[in-house]
Amino acid sequence: MSKITVFETYDVRFPTSQTLDGSDAMNPDPDYSAAYLRIRTDASDGLEGHSFVFTIGRGNDVQRSAIRALAPWFLGHEVEPMLADLGGLWKSLVYDSQLRWLGPEKGVMHMAIGAAVNAMWDLRAKREGLPVWLLLSKLDPEELVGLVDFRYLSDALTRAEALDILAARQSTRAARVDHLLSDGYPAYTTTPGWLGYSDEKLVRLSREAVENGFNQIKIKVGADLQDDVRRMRLARETLGPSIGIAIDANQRWERREAIEWITALAPFDLAWVEEPTNPDDVLSHAAIARAIAPIPVATGEHGANRVMFKQFLQAEALGVLQIDATRVAGINENIAILLLAAKFGVRVCPHAGGVGLCELVQHLSFFDYVAVSGSQEGRMIEYVDHLHEHFRDPVVIESGRYRVPSRPGSGAEMWGESIEQYSIELL
Amino acid sequence: MSKITVFETYDVRFPTSQTLDGSDAMNPDPDYSAAYLRIRTDASDGLEGHSFVFTIGRGNDVQRSAIRALAPWFLGHEVEPMLADLGGLWKSLVYDSQLRWLGPEKGVMHMAIGAAVNAMWDLRAKREGLPVWLLLSKLDPEELVGLVDFRYLSDALTRAEALDILAARQSTRAARVDHLLSDGYPAYTTTPGWLGYSDEKLVRLSREAVENGFNQIKIKVGADLQDDVRRMRLARETLGPSIGIAIDANQRWERREAIEWITALAPFDLAWVEEPTNPDDVLSHAAIARAIAPIPVATGEHGANRVMFKQFLQAEALGVLQIDATRVAGINENIAILLLAAKFGVRVCPHAGGVGLCELVQHLSFFDYVAVSGSQEGRMIEYVDHLHEHFRDPVVIESGRYRVPSRPGSGAEMWGESIEQYSIELL
Repeated sequence: MSKITVFETYDVRFPTSQTLDGSDAMNPDPDYSAAYLRIRTDASDGLEGHSFVFTIGRGNDVQRSAIRALAPWFLGHEVEPMLADLGGLWKSLVYDSQLRWLGPEKGVMHMAIGAAVNAMWDLRAKREGLPVWLLLSKLDPEELVGLVDFRYLSDALTRAEALDILAARQSTRAARVDHLLSDGYPAYTTTPGWLGYSDEKLVRLSREAVENGFNQIKIKVGADLQDDVRRMRLARETLGPSIGIAIDANQRWERREAIEWITALAPFDLAWVEEPTNPDDVLSHAAIARAIAPIPVATGEHGANRVMFKQFLQAEALGVLQIDATRVAGINENIAILLLAAKFGVRVCPHAGGVGLCELVQHLSFFDYVAVSGSQEGRMIEYVDHLHEHFRDPVVIESGRYRVPSRPGSGAEMWGESIEQYSIELL
Repeated sequence: MSKITVFETYDVRFPTSQTLDGSDAMNPDPDYSAAYLRIRTDASDGLEGHSFVFTIGRGNDVQRSAIRALAPWFLGHEVEPMLADLGGLWKSLVYDSQLRWLGPEKGVMHMAIGAAVNAMWDLRAKREGLPVWLLLSKLDPEELVGLVDFRYLSDALTRAEALDILAARQSTRAARVDHLLSDGYPAYTTTPGWLGYSDEKLVRLSREAVENGFNQIKIKVGADLQDDVRRMRLARETLGPSIGIAIDANQRWERREAIEWITALAPFDLAWVEEPTNPDDVLSHAAIARAIAPIPVATGEHGANRVMFKQFLQAEALGVLQIDATRVAGINENIAILLLAAKFGVRVCPHAGGVGLCELVQHLSFFDYVAVSGSQEGRMIEYVDHLHEHFRDPVVIESGRYRVPSRPGSGAEMWGESIEQYSIELL
């Protein structure tokens, strides 16, 4: 048995607002940041559990303090029973009767729980010598459903139905692992489309995206319709008819405004429309989805928890489900969401970018392909080429596809030098 | 002109778990707490702005750190322009492009914004020498709609519709102010119904509730059906047929379970069923509401923001809307929610209890009666007789009705001695 001896948090901020990387209609000047957690044990292997919550700057100190508040659940506790029951750990945190008041299951406290749970996944994967995607892909269906909390899901997905979904894919998992190892997984790129970029930069980066093998790009919209029409025309002219163009309004519109704006941009052939309005608004997303069909609505990076995703699926309010690696309460809750998507037959195309989100979320898509949906059809992971150099195991993109990582762990671990250089102390 | 010179926060915790006051099926052992804020200025009047976020113990330090993170928006800033445009202040905080990522508009960061905004309301009311309810009741409709953010509401309520609602009540406001001053506002009591209480205590407190003039009590349910049947029978036998009994499951049930459980308790004549399931689950609440009609569903104490309330109303998922004084982003957002309720013709019966929630939320119901709904019919404010002694202006209940407070301010101000005695330092 070993015990957790260190539970350290950091407020890591990268000054990305200086270059307008990551700029969109709601987020004009983000400073990509990580409320970072490092867990150490007294085991002789020296292995650590790393994780973080992605934020965009101000408030990263608040997110850090929420993670730090979870230290009593970990410091001094035995590691092995926790790693053997990460579903139980999840419930002990999410249903802590006092902490729950701070959400419930949403916002700063919920994301902090996600970071704590994910650090334990990182440690478990390192102990087993496997990347998280492969660790998850080796778990049998019973252990996987044991990680998921089915409370509040039973009107859409029961434990038995989840078991059936997983069992149906189990015998063919090995072939999909081989396929991932040889061919990777599709990506699309948001690099060309930030709102702060000039037309020249948009065209140049769109051209480079095609040269680099991407089959889809994404363009930020929603600040000014005439600007959007001009930029969409430039992008479509540059890319030709066969490359997908998704648009992302980052919650900018009202319900009716969304429908009018999307209708005006529809002639440019839209792969999907992302975050047309407030991310809590299931009913407006459903109305927009009906109005703009067959163009699919995509959302999820601000989806607070599995109950919100359940409703978006029940209401047919999204056609592309975008999980995020650090918004919900960790890998466990994202497994629940992947199972819900499979039950409803909706494709999952994760949100990534930011800092480290590509490194994390790829594991979930690979696991989904191996064990849950069994398909790459219409599925792709967002890719943005920022800040990967700070990670010990940066994502590798070749010909527009993610290559699978082979290092053990979750992908969260930053270089110590990066943590040191970009950490600040506000408290 | 004066400037804000002090922005102090406190982690105030009362050890209520020792007596099982406040115990329910999801919250067995709350320690009622306040992440407390005190703002001081360099004005010669010496007036201060006080506010807090109510929590139930662990994590109150996280809530406090979120409030503290807002200090740069206040410290050193001029007071008068802020007080003259509290709608603008609200938007500058809620739409801060970086902070917004931490919600958006939910959880710890959103509640912190509420505390900061409410402290300025407290200060403004003290400067004008009015309790907040009367200050609000004196604002003309134009100023009131200027406090509200209609973004994401336009599919349910426009600024023009809100103006119409307010204008229709304006000429008759004075009579309702007089009525409040003479007769107060109806209350109901949750004091008898905590889950941790013995049958004997339930019966005794139920009898006392009637003797004290209350026309409705509330009983916590959801842990064990046979216990609930026994307790409901005891309560109904004690109270007779003419006193209302609401039940509160505190999110305990799944959709189908809720319908079955409520059906089993329906013979005892239920005034409403509160929080039957997860508070984010609009669609399940709507299904439960259809199944148990005409018994109304009540919810709101965990309603994260105005967009969630909008959907509950659009989906007919609640029949009793329970605003909470410190869950959403302050008085401004609660005005938006009161306007939405008026638009949909749904009665508002606030959540209170906790520590200080009665003191705060009464102002919103009084304002609603004077200027928004114009009615007390079917409306009542929750009352629990705990911890009022810590407040400078404790609520006064007579014959089952709230008497209006006359001291200037919002009701949030605790005695300095209470703050000092119950504050802890975790950071």
